[in-house]
Amino acid sequence: MRPVISFCICLIVFCTSASVNGQTAQPMIAAEVIEAIIKQTGSEPVPNTVDVFKAGDPQTPVKGIVTTMFATMDVLKKAVEMKCNLVIAHEPVFYNHRDETTQFQNDPVFLEKKKFIDQNKLVVWRFHDYIHRIKPDAIDYGMALKLGWLKYTDTKAVEHFVIPETTLKELLKTLKKIFPENAFNVIGNQEMKLTKVAFSAGAPGSAAHFSMLEDNNVDVLIAGEVSQWETYEYARDAVSQGRNKAVIFLGHVTSEEPGMEYCAEWLKGFLNNIPVWFIKSGPSYWTY
Amino acid sequence: MRPVISFCICLIVFCTSASVNGQTAQPMIAAEVIEAIIKQTGSEPVPNTVDVFKAGDPQTPVKGIVTTMFATMDVLKKAVEMKCNLVIAHEPVFYNHRDETTQFQNDPVFLEKKKFIDQNKLVVWRFHDYIHRIKPDAIDYGMALKLGWLKYTDTKAVEHFVIPETTLKELLKTLKKIFPENAFNVIGNQEMKLTKVAFSAGAPGSAAHFSMLEDNNVDVLIAGEVSQWETYEYARDAVSQGRNKAVIFLGHVTSEEPGMEYCAEWLKGFLNNIPVWFIKSGPSYWTY
Repeated sequence: MRPVISFCICLIVFCTSASVNGQTAQPMIAAEVIEAIIKQTGSEPVPNTVDVFKAGDPQTPVKGIVTTMFATMDVLKKAVEMKCNLVIAHEPVFYNHRDETTQFQNDPVFLEKKKFIDQNKLVVWRFHDYIHRIKPDAIDYGMALKLGWLKYTDTKAVEHFVIPETTLKELLKTLKKIFPENAFNVIGNQEMKLTKVAFSAGAPGSAAHFSMLEDNNVDVLIAGEVSQWETYEYARDAVSQGRNKAVIFLGHVTSEEPGMEYCAEWLKGFLNNIPVWFIKSGPSYWTY
Repeated sequence: MRPVISFCICLIVFCTSASVNGQTAQPMIAAEVIEAIIKQTGSEPVPNTVDVFKAGDPQTPVKGIVTTMFATMDVLKKAVEMKCNLVIAHEPVFYNHRDETTQFQNDPVFLEKKKFIDQNKLVVWRFHDYIHRIKPDAIDYGMALKLGWLKYTDTKAVEHFVIPETTLKELLKTLKKIFPENAFNVIGNQEMKLTKVAFSAGAPGSAAHFSMLEDNNVDVLIAGEVSQWETYEYARDAVSQGRNKAVIFLGHVTSEEPGMEYCAEWLKGFLNNIPVWFIKSGPSYWTY
């Protein structure tokens, strides 16, 4: 069997290499695309990563790639319409961090989604652990780009900004223009003056937030989401104690979607012969 | 030492018994009050419970009791103003489920809060696991009472309601009148017709939500909070698939605070000689 295996490995290496350089004659398969992406992140292998194929056959030749925040039903339908069959989502497909599906074996929502993926021969891969390990973190970089705040930061640490002095109220107005879709949850005094802003994408846990809020170099934390008995109550007490601190929770999707928009551009930089599109999943909820 | 210990136990039993029946001559200590409360819940002992003293000396004679959702800085100050020294909070005091404080040993927010509690000789006890085990669950009961929906439910299962047919939009208007303070996060179509409503207080985890939403006897789930990659995305897909389902997230505080308001009334029913007050902590955040 050894010669056959060697031949296959050579073939894969050839296809990957050729496609990455834009010279392939035949489409790369999903497994090759993902291998190229992980290599491009520059990260060491992440043990027990969640960045695995969540659905579909990794051997599928890739016609087009969609990057998105969540592979929702609507995103999957749009991907099919756009003739893309590899969906690269930052977050889980099946409603829990590890995409465990045992609990959903009789669940109609799961079964219909799975059937749609299978019938349309889609491949879904999660790009979470590795995209956060790109230097600088590509999700943070995408947000800095979206805010137009790269000029206010050191590009090696794109989650800290020193912006021209403003108030919390004015900062919220600025953010609302960029993210008009749903209400933010805010702790802090509207008239508070600020210049030092930290950004914490997604849901890294409250310890990361506490550490940022303890830092004298942070006035305001812009975050994704966290359990409300953690950072929320800490910030409420901090404000009640008269400290010049505030937290703005944008919501999980809003906090990381610019990163997945940037991801599409990043992929185009080295996957030359495969169409790559970003599809906005948008916030899951509306606010009333 | 045995006779002394026996004497102490007898004294404690006497004090507890006498106070609960409103005949005590001397104030009960915090430990006795909590013992009486746990007994009154009718629950079996809860292993590894979070319902323990979080701060202060359990031997403190109780001058007055405050029930609240969170023992925030503001709630603690009001308790002192009202000459109450036992604070019974549903949720943690120090920003994590088990009130672990190791991470906060150099944190100014924690240190100031702890100092305030100590200087004012307050005692803080958490009432979480046991209040949910009262039959019916006293947090759910408090919400049913607040909504005026006891008439729409079986009092043995106060988390399920069959209300007169309405739309999601109208239901939201009703809820907003009762809870005007911050925006709810909603997944669902505004014009959706509904009669069957389930309530899930606090943050029980998404499995509880999935189970309710899979149930044909549930059109709408009114919930506290959950990670946004879980129930939120499940509900978004369910709606996208054309299912007659919706979820309204009130926020954690809003979903359980009526239960702690009811708790004060429940305590008055058997703690006759101790003043008992409810203090509203209110939502930690405002929405923009």
